[in-house]
Amino acid sequence: MGKQQYWLQVHEKAKQWIQEAAQLLKDSFKDQIDVQFKSSYDDLVTNMDKKIEQYLIGRIHEHYPDHRIISEEGFGDEVSSADGIIWLLDPIDGTMNFVHQQRHFAISIGVYENGIGRVGLINDVVAGDLYHCIKGEGAYINEQKLPQLRDKKLNESIIAINATWINDNKRIDPEIMRPIARQCRGTRSYGTAAIELAYIAAGTLDAYFTMRLSPWDYGAGLILIEEVGGKATRADGDPIDLLKQNSLLVGNPGLHQEIINHIKTEIGDKGKFIEKPAE
Amino acid sequence: MGKQQYWLQVHEKAKQWIQEAAQLLKDSFKDQIDVQFKSSYDDLVTNMDKKIEQYLIGRIHEHYPDHRIISEEGFGDEVSSADGIIWLLDPIDGTMNFVHQQRHFAISIGVYENGIGRVGLINDVVAGDLYHCIKGEGAYINEQKLPQLRDKKLNESIIAINATWINDNKRIDPEIMRPIARQCRGTRSYGTAAIELAYIAAGTLDAYFTMRLSPWDYGAGLILIEEVGGKATRADGDPIDLLKQNSLLVGNPGLHQEIINHIKTEIGDKGKFIEKPAE
Repeated sequence: MGKQQYWLQVHEKAKQWIQEAAQLLKDSFKDQIDVQFKSSYDDLVTNMDKKIEQYLIGRIHEHYPDHRIISEEGFGDEVSSADGIIWLLDPIDGTMNFVHQQRHFAISIGVYENGIGRVGLINDVVAGDLYHCIKGEGAYINEQKLPQLRDKKLNESIIAINATWINDNKRIDPEIMRPIARQCRGTRSYGTAAIELAYIAAGTLDAYFTMRLSPWDYGAGLILIEEVGGKATRADGDPIDLLKQNSLLVGNPGLHQEIINHIKTEIGDKGKFIEKPAE
Repeated sequence: MGKQQYWLQVHEKAKQWIQEAAQLLKDSFKDQIDVQFKSSYDDLVTNMDKKIEQYLIGRIHEHYPDHRIISEEGFGDEVSSADGIIWLLDPIDGTMNFVHQQRHFAISIGVYENGIGRVGLINDVVAGDLYHCIKGEGAYINEQKLPQLRDKKLNESIIAINATWINDNKRIDPEIMRPIARQCRGTRSYGTAAIELAYIAAGTLDAYFTMRLSPWDYGAGLILIEEVGGKATRADGDPIDLLKQNSLLVGNPGLHQEIINHIKTEIGDKGKFIEKPAE
């Protein structure tokens, strides 16, 4: 089997599994959801998180026993290097929304080979939208091909940024992003990084900023965004470390550059605080 | 015809018209949308705004020639008192989303009699959700009856507040709402007041805060929220003037009270700035 045909097959299977998993989630609304509390209110976990994760891991291990898996609920593998093929899984991105809103949550699946994104899928379950791609073959929302992102200026852009990052917090001086939030055309916040990243790929949003995101949250999104010509770095402009928690700024290249220039000036020339990633 | 039967008929007709209007909007995605610029980037107007407004006004004038209409694009009537029956129309709430995202926008129709909300409808067009009610008959999302709102604490609540109001702005001291945004379970912002108000009625969100909203933006939402036992006032706790631009705080009664107490302390005891409504 040729290389590209291999990824085509992986994409086909992942697409089938993500749709089956989405159906399980939709069916679950009929049942009572048993919510457990992890370390904080912001980190709700439901039975369904675990059920979906185990479902997906079961399929991957069955068909691709040599692939490794990094996933939110911890049923995946111990992974310390990006070598080989790695699946980044988030069974429910936006768990708080899932529990509280029964909408605005997604399943996210990203497949990487030696650190390079190959196949990405994000299923916005209640909207019924599947964002998906194979590297080099273009990105899609459902059956519709997504155009390459065009450069935009800040004042014509809609930016996803949670109020947290322009409020008092311990990860970034809120004064850094306040001018960006003021000068853009509008800000949005949906409480689900996977959907927000899919929106960037689809041009529904122009940039997305956060100070903390885990590999399973951004794994699929970064592949989709790269496929449509978008740019993704840490918030300070440095490259993302695929295996770690990162800050994140993504967007079309022009807007990404405009915001990074601003942040670098704020950090460098003005000495404002931004958290460094953990070693 | 009995009084309640009259509103039943108004509701039935409004429901038909809002669904026809939603179909016009969905069809419009196939055409090019001709965007005009009004006073600012934040106030985009499209041909479709006007087309939908004229469509709805035509139907209302035809069937209810003695009713008056207040609507965003200005094809309605001159209205200086809340006497009689008034329709508050927003043909596209979330115009920026409509243009930029082709989702997250709504048609909003509220019918008031002598200042009392009688019939409210909000159509989240792309999600395909119709929120609707007749006063005294319960509120619905599509065919499903919405339960009465239950009181929630701030730290278990999801609050819709745009970054604008905790950023530097001329309408409210940003320090007033920053502690609220930090202490709640999460904040969201969708860029469409009508949908955010519908979400409050449905329990999808627990509170919504803004410093500026027009009668056509909140007309339907307030009726829905009242029907499920929610509370709505200006941001300073004073009553809303139906015919004017208002600030707005809505939510379940317990949470509404908790936030109002906080705001009143900030304004009263600490002397922080909040804009008064125009006379």
